[in-house]
Amino acid sequence: MTAETHARASGRTAHVMAQIRSRIASGALTNGDRLPSIRGFAASLGVSPSTVVEAYDRLAAEGLIRARAGSGFFVQASSVASLPLGARATLPGPREVDPFWVSRQSLDADDESPKPGCGWLPADWMPQAALRRALRNVARAEDAVLLNYGRTQGDFDLRRLLARRAAEEGLALDPANIMLTGSGSQSIDLICRLLLKPGDTVLVDDPCYFNFRALLKAHQVQVISVAMTPTGPDLTAFENALEASAPRLYLTNSALHNPTGATLSPPVAHRLLKLAEAHNLLILEDDIFTDFEPEPSVRLAALDGLNRVIRIGSFSKTLSASLRCGYIAARAEWIEGLVDLQIAAQFGGPSPIVTHVIGEVLTGGSYRKHMEEVRRRLNRTRRSVIARLTTLGIEPWLEPRGGFYLWCQLPEGVSSTALAQAAMAEGVVMAPGNVFSAAQTASRFMRFNVAQMADEKSWQVLERGAA
Amino acid sequence: MTAETHARASGRTAHVMAQIRSRIASGALTNGDRLPSIRGFAASLGVSPSTVVEAYDRLAAEGLIRARAGSGFFVQASSVASLPLGARATLPGPREVDPFWVSRQSLDADDESPKPGCGWLPADWMPQAALRRALRNVARAEDAVLLNYGRTQGDFDLRRLLARRAAEEGLALDPANIMLTGSGSQSIDLICRLLLKPGDTVLVDDPCYFNFRALLKAHQVQVISVAMTPTGPDLTAFENALEASAPRLYLTNSALHNPTGATLSPPVAHRLLKLAEAHNLLILEDDIFTDFEPEPSVRLAALDGLNRVIRIGSFSKTLSASLRCGYIAARAEWIEGLVDLQIAAQFGGPSPIVTHVIGEVLTGGSYRKHMEEVRRRLNRTRRSVIARLTTLGIEPWLEPRGGFYLWCQLPEGVSSTALAQAAMAEGVVMAPGNVFSAAQTASRFMRFNVAQMADEKSWQVLERGAA
Repeated sequence: MTAETHARASGRTAHVMAQIRSRIASGALTNGDRLPSIRGFAASLGVSPSTVVEAYDRLAAEGLIRARAGSGFFVQASSVASLPLGARATLPGPREVDPFWVSRQSLDADDESPKPGCGWLPADWMPQAALRRALRNVARAEDAVLLNYGRTQGDFDLRRLLARRAAEEGLALDPANIMLTGSGSQSIDLICRLLLKPGDTVLVDDPCYFNFRALLKAHQVQVISVAMTPTGPDLTAFENALEASAPRLYLTNSALHNPTGATLSPPVAHRLLKLAEAHNLLILEDDIFTDFEPEPSVRLAALDGLNRVIRIGSFSKTLSASLRCGYIAARAEWIEGLVDLQIAAQFGGPSPIVTHVIGEVLTGGSYRKHMEEVRRRLNRTRRSVIARLTTLGIEPWLEPRGGFYLWCQLPEGVSSTALAQAAMAEGVVMAPGNVFSAAQTASRFMRFNVAQMADEKSWQVLERGAA
Repeated sequence: MTAETHARASGRTAHVMAQIRSRIASGALTNGDRLPSIRGFAASLGVSPSTVVEAYDRLAAEGLIRARAGSGFFVQASSVASLPLGARATLPGPREVDPFWVSRQSLDADDESPKPGCGWLPADWMPQAALRRALRNVARAEDAVLLNYGRTQGDFDLRRLLARRAAEEGLALDPANIMLTGSGSQSIDLICRLLLKPGDTVLVDDPCYFNFRALLKAHQVQVISVAMTPTGPDLTAFENALEASAPRLYLTNSALHNPTGATLSPPVAHRLLKLAEAHNLLILEDDIFTDFEPEPSVRLAALDGLNRVIRIGSFSKTLSASLRCGYIAARAEWIEGLVDLQIAAQFGGPSPIVTHVIGEVLTGGSYRKHMEEVRRRLNRTRRSVIARLTTLGIEPWLEPRGGFYLWCQLPEGVSSTALAQAAMAEGVVMAPGNVFSAAQTASRFMRFNVAQMADEKSWQVLERGAA
């Protein structure tokens, strides 16, 4: 949103607005002064009174003037109104490289800053045309879509669509087992609120998505981790952890694991579920990378049938992060509790406008082809990024079968935290290994987003840092 | 979202889809069967192969068939796919009349059900034209709006606009003191997460908005309440409560209090803040009804200057509940903690698409006039609803100076809970008094939404119930 896009005033209205602005700028009108009368000003400028009313209303909406009921318009006394248009909030200052560090830097960086550490695709990889079409269409949607909070579990047709897509992976789901939420992270948050209490122990992978760590810290739970292998967690360590610490929940990505790109193998999945059963462990399977897989891999939720596994996902990686919609698929009795929690904490779920847009893009016929092209492009890009990183002595831990992440080891003696801080000083956002590691075992690792490395500045920073 | 709006297939594509549907319906194609080859089917129907591809893609998106890489399309084996189009999730069964009762019934009721108990305006009272225009415009917005998570504190221009509006009430605010959130309720939730721990005591009004009770229960805090008067809480009871229970936080609406419609008076505001200071009480001022006031009333946040007062608000009541955006204005150090919490719990704040739409509607020049008309219409409607309720022996506790709520006492011997349950059995959603009362003092009270009482069915239920 910019002043330009909002103030599409017509020529005459803009002229009246400019007249008032220049009188305020010159000091001819100052704080608290009454504006010229509508009728008189209209006559003096040769415009209609309604043009002046519109101009005053727009200036009032901008905060430059204000209306007082029955007595006209006055110049507004407000320090805020004097801020330059388009000014930006200042970025937070230097801060510890903790699990929030990458998120904050990625989200608040300028649009132009290279972000090889961020967790999303560049704009030109996204289904923009389909999104813009769906937004134009939603402007014509029925009142309920446009104005209502939406149902407590969220739009039924979108839940049915999710159930059908799950069925393609062999997970039989009823739409009643699905609740839509405001994001993937929010799905995890609601589940933690439902199932955990402070002091509980939660098991994560080492490494794992840094925001799992941030979220679990907010829930004041104990976090333990087991080493990730290319086919899932190290099962010996996993079993030892269950025996030693009796965690209540295991939080993971089965497919295209963040940050490693690893994918759970069927035998590991089977044995992992048997261990979970033996130790009464619940599992939260974060499935946001599904559509980046070349073909579906095994899912804990599918094997388990939503007995002790909860699945969550979102549309941020494949459609748009601006949509703010995720989902939870879980046992019916948990959904009941999650509905109450979502009402208490947010009143509604995701925007019905947004779920309408998502439904339209997903069923519009172009989505499958779009994702095929994204996967092909990622494969090409991943290969060339790996080749170039290797020349710098930066080695992938694994060549992932899909997705945009690449978990790499830096040359000996190079600290990824120091490298990320040096990069930040040059306006490049990187994701250093230890923000992903509860056990702090990843000081020589870095997560790269292969789709976000087109800018030579990232490579210059890496060349200097890896030397 | 309906099947109709998504499947805007062209005539030829629709024809191909219908052919496949009818073969599945007739049993000619059954679960797991391979669909006709694209080339052959195109030739037999006299359409181009790309038309068949589009039709198959759309059927796959609907879940009726699925693509297997390299081997064509197959009929999908899925019980979910056989659900009738447009089916609705079943409503939850009978349930205790607790603070969730009104929310769940209101949100999940059919669009046609009369809802005199709900907390929003009917569709035809909302600024639909401006919303639809803003949605069409956002379809042309820059990439960042369409695709990004948004900044950690939310869109700067919308925060500046909120700061300017606050300045009109005498509250000097910097945009840096504002964080955008997913809703008003979520604003309260994040503040509770930041400032409260289980076992803390929180003070509310008796009565208060029912979802305050639901939310505070989710935070496992002790809730105490003091009686509301037409000018704010009873200060003697308030002081006693501070002395007896040392609450950490007081949660209230200063203007057009929900459910009573009361408005804090300046002397009560001043004394209340002095008591808060003496007892180290924090105050959360929920300000979502501001734009329904005929003229601004006193605000605790304005008197206190965001020292111990936090202000929250949203756009659900005035623009659209489908937008899912709220805000928090608070001390800078609290905003810092709230940003971390929002990242951890949701990754991003509200949708940039949504904040763009809100900014455009608020600055579009028609908003002030729209709200003036809503206020006039509410005044007329409130008067006629009061007159008719009075003939049934249902008496307003107060005639509010604005807003859509009316807190009424039922005739002696009539239980509002029993009346609301009887109404529910006839498909009418009402808001019985005790869901608003932590102390359960409101069994003879009912909250009416004067804008939602145009349907005679509501009156028939009331006539029978009040008799």
